[in-house]
Amino acid sequence: MKNFKFSAKTDIFFGKGEIKVLGNQLKKNGAKNILLTYGKNSIKKSGLYDNVIEILKEKNINFFELSGIDPNPRITSVRAGIKICKENNIDFILAVGAGSVIDCSKAIASGSLYDGDPWDFAIGKAHAKKALPVACILTLAATGSEMNSGAVITNDDTKEKLPIHAECAKPVFSILDPEYTFSVPKYQTAAGCVDIMSHVFEQYFSPSSNAYVTDMLCEGILKTIVKYGPVAYEQPENYIARANIMWAGTIGLNGLLSCGKMTDWASHLIEHEVSAIYDLTHGAGLAIITPAWMRHVLDNYNSYKFCEIGKNVFGLTGNDGIDLANRSIDKIEEFFKKLNMPVRLCEADIDNSRIEEMAEKINSRFGKIGGFKQLDKNDVLAILNSCL
Amino acid sequence: MKNFKFSAKTDIFFGKGEIKVLGNQLKKNGAKNILLTYGKNSIKKSGLYDNVIEILKEKNINFFELSGIDPNPRITSVRAGIKICKENNIDFILAVGAGSVIDCSKAIASGSLYDGDPWDFAIGKAHAKKALPVACILTLAATGSEMNSGAVITNDDTKEKLPIHAECAKPVFSILDPEYTFSVPKYQTAAGCVDIMSHVFEQYFSPSSNAYVTDMLCEGILKTIVKYGPVAYEQPENYIARANIMWAGTIGLNGLLSCGKMTDWASHLIEHEVSAIYDLTHGAGLAIITPAWMRHVLDNYNSYKFCEIGKNVFGLTGNDGIDLANRSIDKIEEFFKKLNMPVRLCEADIDNSRIEEMAEKINSRFGKIGGFKQLDKNDVLAILNSCL
Repeated sequence: MKNFKFSAKTDIFFGKGEIKVLGNQLKKNGAKNILLTYGKNSIKKSGLYDNVIEILKEKNINFFELSGIDPNPRITSVRAGIKICKENNIDFILAVGAGSVIDCSKAIASGSLYDGDPWDFAIGKAHAKKALPVACILTLAATGSEMNSGAVITNDDTKEKLPIHAECAKPVFSILDPEYTFSVPKYQTAAGCVDIMSHVFEQYFSPSSNAYVTDMLCEGILKTIVKYGPVAYEQPENYIARANIMWAGTIGLNGLLSCGKMTDWASHLIEHEVSAIYDLTHGAGLAIITPAWMRHVLDNYNSYKFCEIGKNVFGLTGNDGIDLANRSIDKIEEFFKKLNMPVRLCEADIDNSRIEEMAEKINSRFGKIGGFKQLDKNDVLAILNSCL
Repeated sequence: MKNFKFSAKTDIFFGKGEIKVLGNQLKKNGAKNILLTYGKNSIKKSGLYDNVIEILKEKNINFFELSGIDPNPRITSVRAGIKICKENNIDFILAVGAGSVIDCSKAIASGSLYDGDPWDFAIGKAHAKKALPVACILTLAATGSEMNSGAVITNDDTKEKLPIHAECAKPVFSILDPEYTFSVPKYQTAAGCVDIMSHVFEQYFSPSSNAYVTDMLCEGILKTIVKYGPVAYEQPENYIARANIMWAGTIGLNGLLSCGKMTDWASHLIEHEVSAIYDLTHGAGLAIITPAWMRHVLDNYNSYKFCEIGKNVFGLTGNDGIDLANRSIDKIEEFFKKLNMPVRLCEADIDNSRIEEMAEKINSRFGKIGGFKQLDKNDVLAILNSCL
């Protein structure tokens, strides 16, 4: 079991109607002049926007707005947000939306107290040391961004999609009302479930297997998605399913599931290259890449880990070994298919024309990737080719 | 799934040698003139005391000491600590020891900023609203006090053992080095494991069963103790076993396992009455009370919950129902026996002479107890009688 630091500072207010705490929490955290960030029209259609505005007015909190933040949020939105913050002495950022809005807001929060260009954080030219406080109202269960320090930002000019780590921008509080996810379309619900499972896999698959307690928590999150993912897919307004998925998504990437472990993250890095070029939904990309990654890295030495998932999460039986491991991976792929996710690149209209470019970009930026099994450029090419 | 707030502010530094962060963390948290609290001689024997003192001197942090804090910490120790704090303008409390030292320190931290007697917090006459900052160096895996806001204090005059809740006294950071638990005797190791499992049971057994994700996390903690408890018992210096147990103990009572649930806590309340009179080790008392509580509350309606534990934690097979539920409870009791814990009051030299007094004290203070199944005085008497 590796040494670790665990710090989960975000206060979570979870459940139906928890928006009621918003006004007092903003006040308590000193918000006077805020930037309200959101995506397209969904929060206006659902009435959440009006609800938030009403609370801000009632508490005499001044606000500016940055709307239209895309899934796969762009560095251009980050720059636009920073401009508003700097010109208007913004003291707090309230992100209302999915992980993309939250990620963008964290980058804005860090960039507003930094003199250079925020892309510097992504390319490692600078490290975010201070940030405006951020809070979230989450509307989609997927990224876990509501309780962590990560953000993934896309640069359309360079066709790059890169992670930023900003401990200073970890949300001070997040409101998680499962009812806000009732209106999430089937496709996004499914992609969110895949994203959550992928976060678990990236942490579960570790070269050391001593952090048993952490692995047991990982399996608990996987079982939750396997149980409730299809329920939420079929019954979008099933509160219990939405609630379990939402909280599973938060725990899935708040640091708890990597305590004492090395992590992998190769599938995420490969998927980022795919969606940086094709603007594919992240979870859909992961549904394609993850089983392919699993089949590529599986060997006699590590097969037991895949077997554990098969047995403990999917209820498979049999002796540990390559056969059971392969059946476990098949189960995972079948589960993604059951949620109508693509599991081949061609299903997302992606051919082999830019695969070499993707593999080379990973190679030039990161060299070898993956904590569970190190992958070089040829491995990445093989994985991408195997899921054409 | 019930609405909930989750707030886990304590920074955890986990692993071998993490004492290295102590000096800087104290400085970062503004500690200049601290109260160092500990128990008897074990931290002196192990060298941890010298290590801490060296770091304090190196960082020019002035310190006072309160030593000799008992297991089942006494309100008299709390009062003594408060006196030192008030007389010497203490600005920070560093607790080095087991849950008892940490609990006592939280009560001192709250009581130092309160004008009345600290027992007021226990009897509900006052609620702790502010506290000196507390940090911990944990030396025994059991109570979870290192990452929560609870404390249990014993009053020898009134023979009462009561919980205090002080969100304001939640540790700002805790150092968890599994090597510090190598020297914990077998009996205390076993009692710690029972305490951790009991914390899980108190949260797992809930009248609603919708918080599936939380229940899966509960089962993960139980599986960890079932796997590693006997290993640590037989091989006290097995780092992996000690590490998994230590982290399981922290997660076991940091709020995560009650998210979205009603909880029970009847077994704890009953055990508190036993150990308030007989000064029994808390975990040993729980090993006696818990199976008795389970057998008393089991019915056709709730038997599935016991079956889940039997199947998912102990690998039992069979159809859900009273029979499988009873076999699950038997498994739990057998596990406690395997750790050489008492499972009957007579094994702890306790007879029936003061059972009526215990049941009456619970009744007069709390009325009915238990969230899973409400228990009145007769139920408490029946439970205590059943484990004579």
